[in-house]
Amino acid sequence: MLTKTGSFKFHIESYVCDFTEKATLTVMTNFLMDAASNHAQQRNFGYEQISKDNAAWVLSRLSVQMEEYPGQNQDLTVETWIEAVSRFSSQRCFSFINGSGKAIGYARTVWAAIDIQTRRPIDIPAWRPDMLQYIEPGKQCPIEKMSKIPSVADVESGMGYTVRYSDIDINKHMNSVKYIEHVINVFDLNVFKEKFIRKFEIVYLAEGMFGDKLKLYRQHLSEDECIIDTKKGEDSVCRSRIIWNKH
Amino acid sequence: MLTKTGSFKFHIESYVCDFTEKATLTVMTNFLMDAASNHAQQRNFGYEQISKDNAAWVLSRLSVQMEEYPGQNQDLTVETWIEAVSRFSSQRCFSFINGSGKAIGYARTVWAAIDIQTRRPIDIPAWRPDMLQYIEPGKQCPIEKMSKIPSVADVESGMGYTVRYSDIDINKHMNSVKYIEHVINVFDLNVFKEKFIRKFEIVYLAEGMFGDKLKLYRQHLSEDECIIDTKKGEDSVCRSRIIWNKH
Repeated sequence: MLTKTGSFKFHIESYVCDFTEKATLTVMTNFLMDAASNHAQQRNFGYEQISKDNAAWVLSRLSVQMEEYPGQNQDLTVETWIEAVSRFSSQRCFSFINGSGKAIGYARTVWAAIDIQTRRPIDIPAWRPDMLQYIEPGKQCPIEKMSKIPSVADVESGMGYTVRYSDIDINKHMNSVKYIEHVINVFDLNVFKEKFIRKFEIVYLAEGMFGDKLKLYRQHLSEDECIIDTKKGEDSVCRSRIIWNKH
Repeated sequence: MLTKTGSFKFHIESYVCDFTEKATLTVMTNFLMDAASNHAQQRNFGYEQISKDNAAWVLSRLSVQMEEYPGQNQDLTVETWIEAVSRFSSQRCFSFINGSGKAIGYARTVWAAIDIQTRRPIDIPAWRPDMLQYIEPGKQCPIEKMSKIPSVADVESGMGYTVRYSDIDINKHMNSVKYIEHVINVFDLNVFKEKFIRKFEIVYLAEGMFGDKLKLYRQHLSEDECIIDTKKGEDSVCRSRIIWNKH
């Protein structure tokens, strides 16, 4: 049997860095998606393997907390493990380890397995009891579980975008990470000079399709905390919470 | 002395693929930028090294021609070499080699070295005569040199975008590859089902800055060839030519 935790190496190229010379949150999210995908594939429940059962993994929640972001030319290791599997969800955690072996951040994700045709959730333990052997109940992910993100009632500012080719992933859906890129684009460049995103949470509620016109609504909860609601008409497609820290 | 040609390995992860399960043109361009950057750095004329002279490399033209794009989970090698260095430009070529050792595409780029303060071009052979030893005049890049791309006079359709955080690179300028992503986003998803971009050319004429509102103008030259002009007001920021092929 493979180890329960998987470990994946990345290198921070200049083209994944923003003007602060650090990897962006979007890139960290691409790394964790890649680690999750490889970890699952090695253990026989990856995308390709489960597509034979007409099943697909769908990300429903993501929470990332970074004490610092890795800089240009640095090495990064992403560790990932399954914390729990319940009837309709699998909880997968991550740690980000820099080149000196220091944990610089953590992430939590919640996934559903759905039937590709009916789009209905699959009872995971009944469908794939073999997954349960990989649960790491003892390993700590020292960030809180995601709290509820309310809808934005008091609309402070609206920006929008249309879902285009570059937003669509290999599965013909809007790429989970691209929602995050658009959410972060709401902010002025000056904000990134002073602060970095210490905590980012997102809950996915509906699917964006090619050509959809999505609107972003922002509400500040305090100077360094805000909610951004991505809506299609009246309905939330995803909701995010961002907490900033001074550099 | 290092070899004149540099060779760099990449792996096609699922998250760099579009719904046709192939790497996108945008990703191929990121790979070639990365190969160019590493090749130059290994030979002591990379970004970091020339920044000590207050100099920076600026991409002025790019031409990519692909017979096919690499697919998910495939290996890719990017070879890069300097074809010629003239007074105010360096011409760098690329070949894309798939996992079976077959050349599936080529690219040509033209770079200027500029003084960071004055933004004026630097006389490359006078400034860095050591670069000349790496010229590979005998190695063939079997695609044509870029032809002139006219401005779009007959505006057929206009789409626009505002330059945001995710467009800005480590040097605080609009990322050369992001212009390409926005250009390609002009097309409907159905086009990508039938065809792939066999040839892509872009000439960079001015710099997009954070907050700029850019407009995209498209003109069809034939069923499978069009020009897209990215403008800020009346002026072209960059102009691209795209030639499509059936899958």
